Amino acid sequence: MPYELHYWPTIQGRGEFVRLALEAAGAEYVDVARGAEEEGQGIPAMMRFMEDADVLHPPFAPPFLVDGKIIVGQSAAILLYLGPRLGLVGKTEPQRLWTHQLQLTIADVVAEAHDTHHPVGTGLYYEDQKKEAQRRAKEFRTARVKKFLGWFETVLERNPRGSEHLVGARLSYADLSLFQLVDGLLYAFPKASRRALKKVPRVAALHESVAQQRRVAAYLASERRIPFNEDGIFRRYPELDA
Amino acid sequence: MPYELHYWPTIQGRGEFVRLALEAAGAEYVDVARGAEEEGQGIPAMMRFMEDADVLHPPFAPPFLVDGKIIVGQSAAILLYLGPRLGLVGKTEPQRLWTHQLQLTIADVVAEAHDTHHPVGTGLYYEDQKKEAQRRAKEFRTARVKKFLGWFETVLERNPRGSEHLVGARLSYADLSLFQLVDGLLYAFPKASRRALKKVPRVAALHESVAQQRRVAAYLASERRIPFNEDGIFRRYPELDA
Repeated sequence: MPYELHYWPTIQGRGEFVRLALEAAGAEYVDVARGAEEEGQGIPAMMRFMEDADVLHPPFAPPFLVDGKIIVGQSAAILLYLGPRLGLVGKTEPQRLWTHQLQLTIADVVAEAHDTHHPVGTGLYYEDQKKEAQRRAKEFRTARVKKFLGWFETVLERNPRGSEHLVGARLSYADLSLFQLVDGLLYAFPKASRRALKKVPRVAALHESVAQQRRVAAYLASERRIPFNEDGIFRRYPELDA
Repeated sequence: MPYELHYWPTIQGRGEFVRLALEAAGAEYVDVARGAEEEGQGIPAMMRFMEDADVLHPPFAPPFLVDGKIIVGQSAAILLYLGPRLGLVGKTEPQRLWTHQLQLTIADVVAEAHDTHHPVGTGLYYEDQKKEAQRRAKEFRTARVKKFLGWFETVLERNPRGSEHLVGARLSYADLSLFQLVDGLLYAFPKASRRALKKVPRVAALHESVAQQRRVAAYLASERRIPFNEDGIFRRYPELDA
């Protein structure tokens, strides 16, 4: 049975980290909320898991994965579950733990990237927090991105199996997620991110090599890859870049 | 060999979720950065792991746990590692995954609680973002806390083994972390949190019952429990409560 991914149908958002793993592994999956309501898919199919009282493990928010009786939410937890099944993580406990730790740190950057345009609150419009967003985005661009990317550069540099991957000598879901993070930063803050990437050549090289993986490249060129847009996490508001 | 916990020595912060697990299980551990430098402990011992080039898995930030050759950062990943070893998580994969998913959602609330006093940036003083903090805290108090606690209430309500625990019929690290989250909210936003807790009686009861667990109670009454203060994540700034 194919995996069911449930996520908002018009944005990459946090669901994209899961999509990339499924796509890179060539896994069969259904992107449920993007399907037709007549076929039992669409947003109502997603909302059922969040609202029905008979769901014992209701997700707090999309994305979540349904695999038979298993329902798992939180993108990092979904990848923890999928990693071994898709062959996107090493076999030993230390490798799996380290890969997960990298993923959680990527999730932290993603949350901070989101907060650049929503520093005051998720429930308010960007237009109502533009001034605060400019202050937050400045700190993010000038201090946080540098610190985070610098750490990933160190991780690549110290990988005893080489700097092509974050963990060991093979593609892991953390590599895919770091690709997505860099891709999002380049979309949202093109000027600042291009500057920052010059100082982290291994991170920049990983971003390029992941994009060239056969299945990833096919996915990125397909209509399944939703373009970045200003409803997602990474938004291009020129006033927030410099 | 005792576990080594490395975290800032003067705050509960994110390290407290790990301390609570170690304490509740009666595990032997050293809170390294709170130890004496003459004995090879203190902050320098912690910084070594973050700065030395021979550390293959450098943590991005404290807290991190050292267990022999294993170094693991990110509080949720530390608990993923410790859970089975301390008997603080169920034995099946679905139980472990669900417990971890709950932990990740608690971590999300914690990050949002932090941002109430630092909406514009971690690198700036609270005094330089007080106005923004008031807007963010209002959204957090009135919308986010209600939504998050309501979700945990639902999780407790739907637990087929009873509402005393989040997962199954025994104490898990997610219970301990939900206790800590509620405790922190009550410290930082006493008015708003007391009001919010009235609507989530199962969450309120879990907060009380965890505090009464024998080992947890002994820990909370000891000097090992650092009091909440205005350097940590949960800060009592009366102007942010209502």
